[in-house]
Amino acid sequence: MKTNIAEKFEKIAEHWHPYIIGELNDNYVKLAKLKGDFVWHNHQDEDELFVVVKGTLFMEYRDGRILQTKPGEILIVPKGVDHKPYTNGEEVQVMLIEPKATKHTGDVKVEQTVENLEWI
Amino acid sequence: MKTNIAEKFEKIAEHWHPYIIGELNDNYVKLAKLKGDFVWHNHQDEDELFVVVKGTLFMEYRDGRILQTKPGEILIVPKGVDHKPYTNGEEVQVMLIEPKATKHTGDVKVEQTVENLEWI
Repeated sequence: MKTNIAEKFEKIAEHWHPYIIGELNDNYVKLAKLKGDFVWHNHQDEDELFVVVKGTLFMEYRDGRILQTKPGEILIVPKGVDHKPYTNGEEVQVMLIEPKATKHTGDVKVEQTVENLEWI
Repeated sequence: MKTNIAEKFEKIAEHWHPYIIGELNDNYVKLAKLKGDFVWHNHQDEDELFVVVKGTLFMEYRDGRILQTKPGEILIVPKGVDHKPYTNGEEVQVMLIEPKATKHTGDVKVEQTVENLEWI
């Protein structure tokens, strides 16, 4: 199955709302547009891969580190590690790969939390 | 962990030789440079994700289909499906995500087969 990422992004309007574009063994491949601040959370049992497609993704950790990830770079957030993604005002586009069991905001539930993932 | 893909590719000389750049649950994230023809093979139990970074990846299937995948596109080859990757003379760069148990050329063993994966 071949998928054009830009064509899928054209169908996404919301920020911080991931959509599924593929499945890979026990993982989903997802796309999300990000803008502004997201909530602190972790995924107890799942590592999370961010492939940045557009813009700069800021990822803050509890120890004060902030990693900036740009197109051509990938970021893996290990299981159990608190992280807070945000952007610097611009819209950021990311492709995510993570186990199907991964909850959007871990055990935290906020207004932005998407509980039922959809394909796009 | 943040990884710059272009910097990793600069360290790779061989074609068809994948190197590990990250681990994600039970999967490896790998990079490979491709040029010319590869062998027909399948992975009985593992889906395989190709993210094309540079060039056009040609993927041939037994039913005669040939899928061309370019930067900005992803290709998922489902488990058990025979496939033959090749390029059109140019060097192609791909990022692969697949289970750690995946054998490079499935149950086929050829001169190009890499049995012991290394990190880069």
